[in-house]
Amino acid sequence: MQVSKLITLKKILLASTSTLYGETYLAYLLDELRVFFKNVNTITFIPYARPGGISHDDYTAIVAKAFAQINKEVVGLHTFEKPEDAIKNAEAIFTGGGNTFLLVKQLHELRVMDILKTQVENGTPYFGTSAGSNIAGVTMQTTNDMPIVYPPSFKTLGLVNFNINAHYLDPDPNNKHNGESRETRIKEFHCFNTTPVVGLREGSYICIEDEKISLKGPFKARIFKENIPPFESINLQF
Amino acid sequence: MQVSKLITLKKILLASTSTLYGETYLAYLLDELRVFFKNVNTITFIPYARPGGISHDDYTAIVAKAFAQINKEVVGLHTFEKPEDAIKNAEAIFTGGGNTFLLVKQLHELRVMDILKTQVENGTPYFGTSAGSNIAGVTMQTTNDMPIVYPPSFKTLGLVNFNINAHYLDPDPNNKHNGESRETRIKEFHCFNTTPVVGLREGSYICIEDEKISLKGPFKARIFKENIPPFESINLQF
Repeated sequence: MQVSKLITLKKILLASTSTLYGETYLAYLLDELRVFFKNVNTITFIPYARPGGISHDDYTAIVAKAFAQINKEVVGLHTFEKPEDAIKNAEAIFTGGGNTFLLVKQLHELRVMDILKTQVENGTPYFGTSAGSNIAGVTMQTTNDMPIVYPPSFKTLGLVNFNINAHYLDPDPNNKHNGESRETRIKEFHCFNTTPVVGLREGSYICIEDEKISLKGPFKARIFKENIPPFESINLQF
Repeated sequence: MQVSKLITLKKILLASTSTLYGETYLAYLLDELRVFFKNVNTITFIPYARPGGISHDDYTAIVAKAFAQINKEVVGLHTFEKPEDAIKNAEAIFTGGGNTFLLVKQLHELRVMDILKTQVENGTPYFGTSAGSNIAGVTMQTTNDMPIVYPPSFKTLGLVNFNINAHYLDPDPNNKHNGESRETRIKEFHCFNTTPVVGLREGSYICIEDEKISLKGPFKARIFKENIPPFESINLQF
């Protein structure tokens, strides 16, 4: 019974961003990742969000270089003939940032969204940054990204019972631009949806171990719920 | 023959924003609108983008108040039982800003996208701001808005042969945030699409009279085309 419990422990790390200003890729998370992946040798990397349109190979090389610092191997999901099997067999999974529309379209079209959810819920450690964190939410509908491709659905993994707004930015009181603030956009989301939204500032990350969910990093999260003003919190239990 | 030519003259005005910083709604455009709508008594207003989630009635009231200054009547499309007929019979059309996903979803679901395109191409004067300008493009895929609802398609009116990025913002050299700049996002669009994109700064607007297209306002446009660096231009002929 205890062994089965150990195997099925949910283990998820969701970061707002991969990179802090002036730092190298994943640098601020390396100590955390060393512990998070301590029982893992090889991480299966999902490169589909393709930041800046770079190739899957180039993206995987950047990730492999970062993880080499903590002695982990990285293999790109795009190198497998059967991505569904690759996810089933993965020791651990990392989904990198980029464009969330592109990532979600690809996951749906390859029919791996459901299997990814099942595997993570059954204990495969999952790490996401930015778009890779957004997809842990109920839907991708609080992404900041541009709809450069049309996904067959906005539904995502639902590993948590809220949506995530990665790279959350506070409204700028000196702003003279008429484009909507992040806060305004999320309020508009709640005119049509009931799912709570966690605004995750750069440097913040969410840790989930089985049923325990905690917020780490230097900042509180900005919480948006239907019909009430947004507020600051470290409690992500909804 | 000349009369028929007069009737079918295409007449389109597409503004980046409805409102400049510190000004009232449409104030900076009123002189232009007085000329643009000189032969029009009543403007049919499309309120579906619902900025901030306000009601169609409230949105229409704001617009009516602004247009009262130049002695135009405004009637909301949502007040008609048959929106398709209302568009067919409209003297002129104005689509206001808000959320582009919401606007496009509604236009597709009411099955008025095609009829709106036909009417404008046949001479019904069309004025758009922000989301209302975005939909004049080939697709809505260069909107800045959040995907708060799922439209059945990203295709829009195609009144011009490019896409529009309203509220275009230049990259901020002092930015310490890791979220993508507008320029980066549009470059990512061109990894998957060939349509040119016009970055329209606040205060800029596009005037189309039949085949003549011109950029007005104090700024040049930022032009993005596949495979070449973005550049400044007032020429929108592609």
